[in-house]
Amino acid sequence: MSEAGPHSTSQEHPADRLCAAIARVGSPVCVGIDPVLDRLPASLQPARRDFRAASQAIASFSLGVMDAVTPHTACVKLQSACFERFGPPGVEALRRVIDEAGRRGLQVILDAKRGDIGVTAEHYAGAIFGDAPGDAPADAPGELAPGTPDWVTINSYFGEDGIRPFLRPACGAFALVRTSNPGGDAVQCARLADGRSVAELVAGMIASIGDNYVGPDGYSALGAVVAATRPDETAALRDIMPRQILLVPGFGAQGGDAETVRNCFAPDGRGAIVSASRSVIYAFDPGDPQWQRAVADAAAAFAQQVAEVAGA
Amino acid sequence: MSEAGPHSTSQEHPADRLCAAIARVGSPVCVGIDPVLDRLPASLQPARRDFRAASQAIASFSLGVMDAVTPHTACVKLQSACFERFGPPGVEALRRVIDEAGRRGLQVILDAKRGDIGVTAEHYAGAIFGDAPGDAPADAPGELAPGTPDWVTINSYFGEDGIRPFLRPACGAFALVRTSNPGGDAVQCARLADGRSVAELVAGMIASIGDNYVGPDGYSALGAVVAATRPDETAALRDIMPRQILLVPGFGAQGGDAETVRNCFAPDGRGAIVSASRSVIYAFDPGDPQWQRAVADAAAAFAQQVAEVAGA
Repeated sequence: MSEAGPHSTSQEHPADRLCAAIARVGSPVCVGIDPVLDRLPASLQPARRDFRAASQAIASFSLGVMDAVTPHTACVKLQSACFERFGPPGVEALRRVIDEAGRRGLQVILDAKRGDIGVTAEHYAGAIFGDAPGDAPADAPGELAPGTPDWVTINSYFGEDGIRPFLRPACGAFALVRTSNPGGDAVQCARLADGRSVAELVAGMIASIGDNYVGPDGYSALGAVVAATRPDETAALRDIMPRQILLVPGFGAQGGDAETVRNCFAPDGRGAIVSASRSVIYAFDPGDPQWQRAVADAAAAFAQQVAEVAGA
Repeated sequence: MSEAGPHSTSQEHPADRLCAAIARVGSPVCVGIDPVLDRLPASLQPARRDFRAASQAIASFSLGVMDAVTPHTACVKLQSACFERFGPPGVEALRRVIDEAGRRGLQVILDAKRGDIGVTAEHYAGAIFGDAPGDAPADAPGELAPGTPDWVTINSYFGEDGIRPFLRPACGAFALVRTSNPGGDAVQCARLADGRSVAELVAGMIASIGDNYVGPDGYSALGAVVAATRPDETAALRDIMPRQILLVPGFGAQGGDAETVRNCFAPDGRGAIVSASRSVIYAFDPGDPQWQRAVADAAAAFAQQVAEVAGA
């Protein structure tokens, strides 16, 4: 056996943990939790609209969603903005929800899209992974602290020194490569002199950095966010990043056809995790006291649909 | 007089406010406050290293720095990561520091580098600009709420719908165009088929979006972060973005020669604000009880140096 490095055991490496969790539930899906006050079930609407009451309401909703979807998904993706929205109590609520997700055995992706130059990126990583005050990055623990996510989403625009601080022995990062929002094309689809798109350039950079963080199971602690845009585009990005787990957002509400999503997977049906948010977590009538049943049904249908597409 | 739009009065428009503040102090500078526990004056070191004590210590330091630099600078740039680092108490401390900066008449840039797809960007903007729970973005107030910054830094990778939510009637945003960190070149300097760099492509996008947010004084509420890299590069970016205020980081500790910085300014010495952080705020011996005097001296020297370069 090779020398024990920080990523040496299957239990510790975040990509191995995620792959094992996906294998356990049988479908490579992730439920995105983007809680907004106006869409909560009537029973969870706060009496007062202050930051603390709002934070408690979205935390209760998030826990209820997790209870409903846990049989069908390996993973939840929490939208940091929806919690930060409510100031310090929101940040507190987020930490509690992450902690509770871990107790339920769910893998947690914190969708925070952080990114900055190296020294500042270290502070963001410290914030996200719960380092104690005064901890140097080198003191990063080999195990997850309570209330810290398994993965975080990050921005790629700063390049390598903005990315490395988010890669910890026990935690990984999904770097933005291709987004599906209307404005995304303007930068990401621009064509370089060598024929590649900017997204493909970024993908190549991620693949190269990520090669230093590959776990025993063959996937890197540095994954990539790749929206389901067009089949040729996802196929090209998959080829450039063979060791990246691709986080594929926007299935459901935002569309993304079967072939486009299929091309995000390796031939063995691994290497990608498909995320749906609003189409699952708001699949209820606001007045329905059994709203969790509707969420569970939507999660089950989503998981089955993706399992078929992935051909796992 | 033309019809009163959201950006119709000089007092309200963030670019006009910033230009007026710069004219008042006589130098286009910004002091970056990136407080880290290990570099605080000995007198401000917290007795305990928990999140609350750490947050109070960095808040006290930030206030002390502001008192020292207020005669010399129109503007402070607060590094969100350094506060977020300490969880909910850190976020609370950040809001208090922003509020206190406003009371001192300082313009405040929150350096948060947020960026996401449109709907999520709206949540981040709500978090930063202190919207009440349940506020729709359309309800954004025409005046600044207490504890909210005048400007925020944002990431450009999502394109237009990721940028617009941060532009409010009373608040502006500096979008990342060019960074000076070691990894920045990999994406930002890549050459497009049409001969432009990716940074120039992004600059063109920012100029075009920003044209819809120009204030009475001729500058847009959408500015750009442009590091002082090379003279030809800053000159090209200045040309592409005639109506953007350029936020130029890294003067001092990170270098950036006079010509490179000068090219960030319009011929009349306006249109840019140069930021220095560590070279000013840590310009003291940790044991010196008069540390604020050293910070004030460093700020004064920095302001004079930049005024000369700008030729204002």
